[in-house]
Amino acid sequence: MFEEMWRELAPVGRVAGGGYVRQPLTRAERECSAWFLQAAADRDLRVELDGFGNAVAWWDPPQATTARSLLTGSHLDSVLDGGAFDGPLGVVSAFAAVDVLRERGVVPGRRVGVGAFFEEEGSRFGIACLGSRLASGAMSVDTAEALTDRDGVRLGDAWAQASLDPTTGPSLLADVGCFVELHVEQGRGLVHRGAAVGVASAIWPHGRYRFDFDGQANHAGTTRMQDRHDPMLTYASTALAADTLARAGDRRATFGRLEVHPDATNAVPSRVTAWLDARAETAEHLEALLAELERQGRDRAALDGTSLHVTPESVSGPVHFDGELAQRISAPHGWPVIPTMAGHDAGVLATAGFPSAMLFVRNPTGVSHAPDERASTADCLAGVEALADTLQGLCG
Amino acid sequence: MFEEMWRELAPVGRVAGGGYVRQPLTRAERECSAWFLQAAADRDLRVELDGFGNAVAWWDPPQATTARSLLTGSHLDSVLDGGAFDGPLGVVSAFAAVDVLRERGVVPGRRVGVGAFFEEEGSRFGIACLGSRLASGAMSVDTAEALTDRDGVRLGDAWAQASLDPTTGPSLLADVGCFVELHVEQGRGLVHRGAAVGVASAIWPHGRYRFDFDGQANHAGTTRMQDRHDPMLTYASTALAADTLARAGDRRATFGRLEVHPDATNAVPSRVTAWLDARAETAEHLEALLAELERQGRDRAALDGTSLHVTPESVSGPVHFDGELAQRISAPHGWPVIPTMAGHDAGVLATAGFPSAMLFVRNPTGVSHAPDERASTADCLAGVEALADTLQGLCG
Repeated sequence: MFEEMWRELAPVGRVAGGGYVRQPLTRAERECSAWFLQAAADRDLRVELDGFGNAVAWWDPPQATTARSLLTGSHLDSVLDGGAFDGPLGVVSAFAAVDVLRERGVVPGRRVGVGAFFEEEGSRFGIACLGSRLASGAMSVDTAEALTDRDGVRLGDAWAQASLDPTTGPSLLADVGCFVELHVEQGRGLVHRGAAVGVASAIWPHGRYRFDFDGQANHAGTTRMQDRHDPMLTYASTALAADTLARAGDRRATFGRLEVHPDATNAVPSRVTAWLDARAETAEHLEALLAELERQGRDRAALDGTSLHVTPESVSGPVHFDGELAQRISAPHGWPVIPTMAGHDAGVLATAGFPSAMLFVRNPTGVSHAPDERASTADCLAGVEALADTLQGLCG
Repeated sequence: MFEEMWRELAPVGRVAGGGYVRQPLTRAERECSAWFLQAAADRDLRVELDGFGNAVAWWDPPQATTARSLLTGSHLDSVLDGGAFDGPLGVVSAFAAVDVLRERGVVPGRRVGVGAFFEEEGSRFGIACLGSRLASGAMSVDTAEALTDRDGVRLGDAWAQASLDPTTGPSLLADVGCFVELHVEQGRGLVHRGAAVGVASAIWPHGRYRFDFDGQANHAGTTRMQDRHDPMLTYASTALAADTLARAGDRRATFGRLEVHPDATNAVPSRVTAWLDARAETAEHLEALLAELERQGRDRAALDGTSLHVTPESVSGPVHFDGELAQRISAPHGWPVIPTMAGHDAGVLATAGFPSAMLFVRNPTGVSHAPDERASTADCLAGVEALADTLQGLCG
C-alpha cells in the first residue's frame, strides 16, 4: 500500500531533471491535497481542515475516551526543485502505518491523526514551518497575512483566493497530546551507523538572515577598478568568510539565494541582497558565527566603499525533543538517537509544548532539498513498520 | 532648443530613484521613437526607418550632389536603471546641431542625417550595438532573430509584433560616407583635463563571457561543509580573482549579472551562472586576463568539487578611430583626444569601414550606466556647438 500511494503521488509537481516544485497554494499543492483527501477517504478517515491550509485525517477510537489525540504526519510542499521524500515520506508512511495497525488488529484507545502541514519549507512566503507555527499559535495570523511571495502576492490574498479563512476554522491541535513525525534523513548519520531507522534527539538552532550590500552602480567598462564601490566584491568576500567560519566550528552557513540590482552585464551593481542560512549546535555558537561574519563583512565593506546591513528574517532556538519519549521509542529496537540540523514541524510543536518525537529513514546519498534525495523502498517499508510500532506503543 | 528637447524626453522611461529603463521594443522605447519622429517633423527632416528598428532623419541638400552622406546621432535605449545621458545626449545634440547650422546659414553640400540606433546597450537581447551591427552587416538577421530576452521572447517575434520586418526595408548606411557620434563621457578623463569636450582616439577591446559554475544542490542545514559541492563558493572566489587581476593590469572586469539555481535560502545551489564584462587596452591583454581568470576559477572548482565552463557571448576587438579625422576635428579647438573603454555604435561602424569619429562631453561624476550619470547644461551646450562645428567642417 505504501508503494501504491508513493506511485500516485510521484508525478505531482515533478519538473525536468526529476526534482519537485510543490509550492503552497499552487496547482501542484492542490493536486497533493486531492491525493491526501482520497487517501483519507480510502481508509474511512475523517478529514478536518483549518483556515491556514493544514489538514488532518482522523482515525477515531471506537469508544469515547478522555485520552488526548496522537498525531503523526509531516508536510507535502517542497523546496524549489527539491527531492521526492522530504515531507511526503512522512505523510505516506503515516497512512501506511494506519493500514499496518489495522492489519495487526490494533484498536486505538485514542484518536490517531494523519496530518499534512502547510508551507513547511517556507519556499514561497519565506517562513519555514508556517502551518505548524500558525496552528500552534507561535505566529500570529496578522503577521502571516502580510507575508509576500517573490511576485509580491500577499499570503492573505493567496488564502482568500483559495477560499481559506485563517480567522475561522477548527484548531487541529486543540486536542493533540503527542506528535510523531517520520522524515527522510537529510544527511548520512544512519548510513554511518548502519541503521535503516533512527530517532531524533534535538534540532540545532538555525536562522535566515538577509544581507544587504549597498554600493554605487556604474559603467562596467569606463569605471576604473579603484574608483568603484562594488557591492558584489563585498558579497563574494562575505560568502567565502561564511564558509571558512562554518568549517572551523562544525557549523553550517550557506548563501543559496541572491538578488542583484540592476543585474546588468555592463553595469557595476548598486546592490546585492543575499540570504544566509546558518545553523549551529547551540544558540551561542550561532550568534557568535553571525557576529563574526557581520564583522568580517563590514571590514570588507569599508575597503570596498560599500555598506552591509544584516536583518534576521527568522531565527529558531534549539529544540530538545522529549528525552523520555525518544528513549521509549528507540530502546526496544536499538534505533540510534541522533540530532538533526534541519527544522521540522515536530520542532515547532515541541517548542510549543507538545510532546513530540521524530523518526528518520536512512538516505543513502545524504542529499536533501535536491533531486538526488533518496531512500530505498526496503528502508521506507522499515520506516512504516517503525512508525506503526511507535504509534501502537502510544495509542493503546 | 536643446533644453526644450531634453525636457520633453526626460520623463520617458524614468523609474523610481531617477534612473531610466528604456529597453528596445517596449513602451518606453515607443515613446522615445515618437519623440524622435516629432523632432524630425519639427525640422522638416525626412525620416527613413529600416526593418531592424534603426531610424535616420535626413536633412537633404538643396542641390543634387554625389558626395556621400554625413551621419550623426547615437541611440535612445538605456541599460536597466541607467542614466539620462548615455545615448539620448547624442541624438538630442544632433538635432540641436542641425538647428545651429541652420541659424548659421549653413547650406549642406551633402545629406546630413540624425540617427538613432536600435538596442545599443544590449540590455534586452544581450548583444550590444545590435542595430548598428545589423545595419552594417556585422551580424546576420538569422543570428539576431534567434536571440532571446530574459523571458524567452525571441527578437524575431518581438520584431514581428512591432510590425518590423528585418528582411525588407532600406539600408540606412548604404550612402553614408562618415559618422560622428556625440556621447557623454563615461569616466573623468575630461574632468582631469579641464575640458568640456573631447575627441575619441580608440575603443578598448571588450567582451561578455558567461561563466557557468556547476555543483550539487543539497540541504543547507544538514549537509556538512566538507561534503558540499557549492558552486557559489567557486563563483565568489572567481569574482574576487577577477577584481584582483583587473586592478593589477589596469584592466576592467565586472560580474554584474547573476542567476542562481534553485535560488532557495535553505538549499546549497546546484548552479551559479555569472556574466563577466571584461575590457583591456589590447586584445592580447584581454585574452590574457580571461585565460588567467579561467585558470584560477578552475583551480578553485577543483577544490570545491564543482566545475566551471566559460562561454564568450560577444567579443569586440579594439577600435582605432580615423586618426586624420580625429585630428581634423580636434586641432582647431584644442580638444583633447582620449581613448574610451566603452563600446559604441561609432566603434561598430568604424570596424565596418565607415570613417567615424566621436565627441565626448564632460561628466562631473564620471558615473555612467547609473542614475548619477551627469553633464552640466553648459557642457551639453558646448557639446552642441562642438558637434555643429564638426558637422559644418565635414558637410561643406
